[in-house]
Amino acid sequence: MATIGFIGLGNMGGPMAINLARAGHRVRGFDLSAEVLQAVAAQGVEAAVSAPAAAADADVVISMLPAGRHVAALYLGANGDGSNSSGPGLFEQLKPGALVIDSSTIDAATARQVAAAADARGIDFIDAPVSGGVGGACAGTLAFMVGGSAGQFERARPILASMGKNLFHAGAHGAGQVAKACNNMLLGILMAGTSEALNLGIRNGLDPAVLSGIMQQSSGNNWVLQVYNPVPGVMETAPASHDYRGGFQVDLMFKDLGLALELSQHSAVPVPMGSQARNLFHLHKQAAASNGALDFSSVLQLYQGH
Amino acid sequence: MATIGFIGLGNMGGPMAINLARAGHRVRGFDLSAEVLQAVAAQGVEAAVSAPAAAADADVVISMLPAGRHVAALYLGANGDGSNSSGPGLFEQLKPGALVIDSSTIDAATARQVAAAADARGIDFIDAPVSGGVGGACAGTLAFMVGGSAGQFERARPILASMGKNLFHAGAHGAGQVAKACNNMLLGILMAGTSEALNLGIRNGLDPAVLSGIMQQSSGNNWVLQVYNPVPGVMETAPASHDYRGGFQVDLMFKDLGLALELSQHSAVPVPMGSQARNLFHLHKQAAASNGALDFSSVLQLYQGH
Amino acid sequence: MATIGFIGLGNMGGPMAINLARAGHRVRGFDLSAEVLQAVAAQGVEAAVSAPAAAADADVVISMLPAGRHVAALYLGANGDGSNSSGPGLFEQLKPGALVIDSSTIDAATARQVAAAADARGIDFIDAPVSGGVGGACAGTLAFMVGGSAGQFERARPILASMGKNLFHAGAHGAGQVAKACNNMLLGILMAGTSEALNLGIRNGLDPAVLSGIMQQSSGNNWVLQVYNPVPGVMETAPASHDYRGGFQVDLMFKDLGLALELSQHSAVPVPMGSQARNLFHLHKQAAASNGALDFSSVLQLYQGH
Amino acid sequence: MATIGFIGLGNMGGPMAINLARAGHRVRGFDLSAEVLQAVAAQGVEAAVSAPAAAADADVVISMLPAGRHVAALYLGANGDGSNSSGPGLFEQLKPGALVIDSSTIDAATARQVAAAADARGIDFIDAPVSGGVGGACAGTLAFMVGGSAGQFERARPILASMGKNLFHAGAHGAGQVAKACNNMLLGILMAGTSEALNLGIRNGLDPAVLSGIMQQSSGNNWVLQVYNPVPGVMETAPASHDYRGGFQVDLMFKDLGLALELSQHSAVPVPMGSQARNLFHLHKQAAASNGALDFSSVLQLYQGH
Repeated sequence: MATIGFIGLGNMGGPMAINLARAGHRVRGFDLSAEVLQAVAAQGVEAAVSAPAAAADADVVISMLPAGRHVAALYLGANGDGSNSSGPGLFEQLKPGALVIDSSTIDAATARQVAAAADARGIDFIDAPVSGGVGGACAGTLAFMVGGSAGQFERARPILASMGKNLFHAGAHGAGQVAKACNNMLLGILMAGTSEALNLGIRNGLDPAVLSGIMQQSSGNNWVLQVYNPVPGVMETAPASHDYRGGFQVDLMFKDLGLALELSQHSAVPVPMGSQARNLFHLHKQAAASNGALDFSSVLQLYQGH
Repeated sequence: MATIGFIGLGNMGGPMAINLARAGHRVRGFDLSAEVLQAVAAQGVEAAVSAPAAAADADVVISMLPAGRHVAALYLGANGDGSNSSGPGLFEQLKPGALVIDSSTIDAATARQVAAAADARGIDFIDAPVSGGVGGACAGTLAFMVGGSAGQFERARPILASMGKNLFHAGAHGAGQVAKACNNMLLGILMAGTSEALNLGIRNGLDPAVLSGIMQQSSGNNWVLQVYNPVPGVMETAPASHDYRGGFQVDLMFKDLGLALELSQHSAVPVPMGSQARNLFHLHKQAAASNGALDFSSVLQLYQGH
Repeated sequence: MATIGFIGLGNMGGPMAINLARAGHRVRGFDLSAEVLQAVAAQGVEAAVSAPAAAADADVVISMLPAGRHVAALYLGANGDGSNSSGPGLFEQLKPGALVIDSSTIDAATARQVAAAADARGIDFIDAPVSGGVGGACAGTLAFMVGGSAGQFERARPILASMGKNLFHAGAHGAGQVAKACNNMLLGILMAGTSEALNLGIRNGLDPAVLSGIMQQSSGNNWVLQVYNPVPGVMETAPASHDYRGGFQVDLMFKDLGLALELSQHSAVPVPMGSQARNLFHLHKQAAASNGALDFSSVLQLYQGH
Repeated sequence: MATIGFIGLGNMGGPMAINLARAGHRVRGFDLSAEVLQAVAAQGVEAAVSAPAAAADADVVISMLPAGRHVAALYLGANGDGSNSSGPGLFEQLKPGALVIDSSTIDAATARQVAAAADARGIDFIDAPVSGGVGGACAGTLAFMVGGSAGQFERARPILASMGKNLFHAGAHGAGQVAKACNNMLLGILMAGTSEALNLGIRNGLDPAVLSGIMQQSSGNNWVLQVYNPVPGVMETAPASHDYRGGFQVDLMFKDLGLALELSQHSAVPVPMGSQARNLFHLHKQAAASNGALDFSSVLQLYQGH
C-alpha cells in the first residue's frame, strides 16, 4: 500500500480519495475548503493543512483541480516556472521516483509542460483525466485517459484501478488530455445532434420514444440514445426525466468545448461541428441564468422554444 | 402469395424485387432502363412494358423512385393531381383494397398528399423508406420505417419481411419519411463529428485506432465508431479501408441532408447541427469533381487538407 | 400610357399599383381580398373581379404574389403547366407582344420555367423582385433586380420607373431572383454578424453607440451599421428604437434565407454563412411565438438572453 | 517633441516608428532582429541594444508585439508579474508620469492586467491596437482604437496623430482591444459572407461585377464590396486582382478570430457567426500549405472548389 497525497477534494476528488483510502492506502488530502476537508476526514482521508503537507513523504501525489494554471502553480510554483519566492512547487519537494497523477481536465500544453519539468527531476508524471462523472467517482467506475510512457501507465495502473474501471493508455504526455478533449467534444456534438433530430421528429408528429427506438437500432445510434435520452419521460434514469438535475452540467460541457476550441486554435485543426455544438450550448447557457447548472441534455430546450 | 407490381428497379429496387420473387410472390417489374429490366428478368421478375402494365391486377404495388415528383406522377398522374390527360396515375387503375408501398426516400409532404389521395379511393398506402444500402437490399436485411395506420402496417408486414429485417412503425402517414430524414440527418452529424474528433486527436499525436477505441468505450460512442470508422486502416470492413469505394455516396448523404433541411424549413424547426453537417458535405463535394461518388466517410478528407 | 393588369395588391403590391395609376396609367387590379381591392380602388386602381378580368386587353401585366407556385398557377394554369381545365393560365389569354413583370420574390427555377413558356408564346416576361420594403413601395423608391434580355429590360424600364428608383439589369431570365436571393442572404449575414459583434462588445463593457461608430468608420462598415442599427436607442429611425416594429419581419427574412438555401441545394453551391444566419433567425423565431412578426434586427435578442 | 522608446519594429512597428521620427520626435527603437533595427536606423530611428535601453529616459514608450505574453513580459517582467529575477519589466524602470502606448493586438484581459500595474505606479498606459495594415502604417493613416481614461486618450492624441488618422476612444482600459476584436470578427464575417453570396450568384450565372454592383447599392452593401472585392478582376486595386498577394494574411485573420473566440469564451458571450467564419478560414488555411500567407479574401477559393 502506498502513501498518497491528494490535492483537490471537490465533487470528483473527494470520492476518489475516499476510494483510495478504502482500498487500504494511506491518503493525506488537502483542499482550500475546510468544509470539504472535514467531510473526507470522516471517511478515512487524513486532512492536511497545505498541499506540501499532504505531499510530504508521499510515494504518489494525485491532483484534481479546475484548470491548467492551478496545476502549473501546484507543481511548478506560483509563477508556473518554479522561479518565485512566494512558494516553491511540489516538484521541489518530491523525492525522485515519485509518481504524480494529474486527473484534472486541463489543456494539453500545460500537461506537457508540467510533464517535462517532472522528467527533468526524475519524477513520473502522467496526465490522467477522467470521465464518468460524480456517479462514477463514488462507485469507483471512472474511466481514465492516460498520457505518459507505457512504463508510467503500468506503474499507475494499480492506483488508478482503485478509483476506476476503464484504464486507457492514450499515448505520450498530454495524450490523455487530448483524448478527453476529443471525446467530450464528440459528446457535445452527439447531444446537440440527437436533441435536434428528436425535436425535428417530434415537431413533425412523431412520438419521441418511437423515434428514439428507431434511431437507436439504425445508423443514428449513439451513446445519448443508449443511456442519456434528452426528452423527459423517455428514459427513467436519464437526467431529462428528473428536471435535468444531476448529471453533467451545461457549464462543464461549455468548459470542455472551450478546451477543444483552444486545442483547435493552437494546433490549427478545424472543428466546425464542435464549434457549432459550442455555439448551441452557449446560446442555451445564456438564455436563462439558471441554465448553466442544468444537466447538459437540457440543450433540447433551446430547440423547443416557446 | 401476392401479385406484386414493382416500379423502379435500380440499385435498391432491383434486389428488393428479386427477393420478393424468391419468396414466392408473382412480381411484375417496370423500369425506364431496358438494361435494368433485363437483369431482373433473369432472376424471376417478369418485365412489364410500362408502370400500368406492371400494376395491372396487382394486389400490391411497390415503388422505389428518386424523388417526390416521380412518386406523385406515378400515382396521381402527370400533373401530380390526377387531372391530366397525358396519362392517369396508377390510383385511377388500382382496385379498391389494393396495398401500395412507397419505399422511395422523399419529402413527407408529398407522402402525405399521395396517402390522402389513396385514402379517398379506398387504397391502403404506406410510406416505407429503407435504410441498409445496396448490401441490405441484396441480403434482404433492410430496415423499413413505415408511416400509415397500425392496420396498414400489419397488412404490409409479411411483404416487407421478404425484403427486410427491422420493421418499424414510425406513426401516421408521412412518419416513415420523417423518421428517415431525422435518422439520416443524425447520421450525417455523427459522421462529420466523429471524423472531426478523430482528426483533432490524430493531428495532436494520437493513434487513430487507440483514440477510436477509447471513444467507443466512452461517451463518444456511436454507430460510426462501431461499424464505419472513417480513418483508412482502422476497420478492415469499412469503406475507408477501400479507398472510400462502395458504401453510401456523398451525393446521397447530401440529398438526404437536403430533405432534412426542407423539412426544417416547412415545419419551421431549427437544425443548426444538421445544417452544419450539410455545409461540410457540401464543401467536400465540390472540392473535387469526383468526391460526390465517394463513400460519405470520405468527409474526413475535408479536415485533412494538404 | 399603358393599360396594366396588376395581380396581388397586398402591402407591397397595393402601393405599387397606386403609384402606377398616379403616373397616369390605366391600372386594373385584382386581389383575393375584397377589403384590399376596395382600398386601392379609392386611389385610382380599377377593381377587377378576377385575374383574367384584370389582364383583359392589358399591354402590361404585373404580379406580386407570395411564392413560386402562385406565380406558376397564375400564368400557366392551375397545374402549373397550362394543361388543366379548371382555369387556363393568363398566358393563354394575353396577346403576343404583351409585357409581363413578375415582382414576386420566388425561386429562380420557377421564374425560368415561366419565362420559357412566355417566350414560346411571344410574350415578354421578366422576373423583377424588389427591395426597399413597404416604405419604398409607398414612396416609389423600390429597387428592382431584373432578369430577362436587355431589350426586355429596356422595354420595362419606364413602367418600373413609376414604382422604383434603382433599376438593375441582373442578367438573363431568373437572374433577378438569383440576385435578390444573394443580396438578402448577405443581408441576413450582415444583420446577425453585426448584432453579434455589437453584443460581444457591449457585454465586455463598450458603449453600443461608440462601438457602432468605430466599426462604421473601420473595415466592419456595412449597411446595418449605416441605417439599421439593431441596438435600441443608437439610431432613432431604426426599428430597434421602436420596439422592433415595422421594418422587415423575421418571418420574411426566414423565407428569403430559405430561398437562398433552396438555390444552394439545387445548384450544389455551399452557403455555410447563410445557413448559420438562417439557424439564428430560426432559433430566434421559435424562442417566442410573437418573434416572427418583429423586425429582423430583433435577432439581437437571441444573443442577449436573460 | 518627445523622447520615445519604440519596442517591436516589424512590418507595422517599423514604419510607425519612422513616422514618429519624421514628425520630429526623438525615437529610440529596439527589435530582436538586427536586420530590422538597421533598416529603421537608416530612416531616423536610433537603434538601441535592448528594450530597457530604448526606454531609458523616455517620456513615451510604444510597443508593437505579437501576443499578450510578450506585452506582459515586456512591462511586468519575465513572469508577467514583476516578481522574477531574470529581468525586471519596463514598469520598474519608467519614471512616474510616463506614457505607455501598447499598439499590439492582444487579448483584453492582459491589456487590463498591464494597465492596472501601470496605474499602481503612476504610469499612464493605454491599449491602442490599430487597423489599416502595412499600407496604413507607412502612410501614417492608421486607425487607433484606444482603451484608457479620457485624459490618457487626450494625452496620447498628438503622438497617435503622427502615426494615424482616425483616433477612436473606445472606453476604459481594455476597450481598445475589445473594439478591435469585435471589428475584426465582423470583418471576417463580411469577407466570408460576401464571398459566399458572390459565389452563389456566379455559379447561378450572374456576372460578378454586376452582382457586386447591385449588392453594393442595396442592403448587402459593406466594406468588402466597397474596397476589397474578393473576385479577381472586379476591382483593380484589391488583392484578389493580384493573386491574393499583399493585403491582410489569412493567418492574421485566423489569429484575430481566435482572439474573438477567446474573448467569447472568457466572457461567455456567444459568437456563432464569428465561429463559423473562423471555421471557414480554418478549412481554407489547411486546404493548402501556402494559403496562410495569401490575402484573406482568398477564402473565396474555398467556395470555388475544383
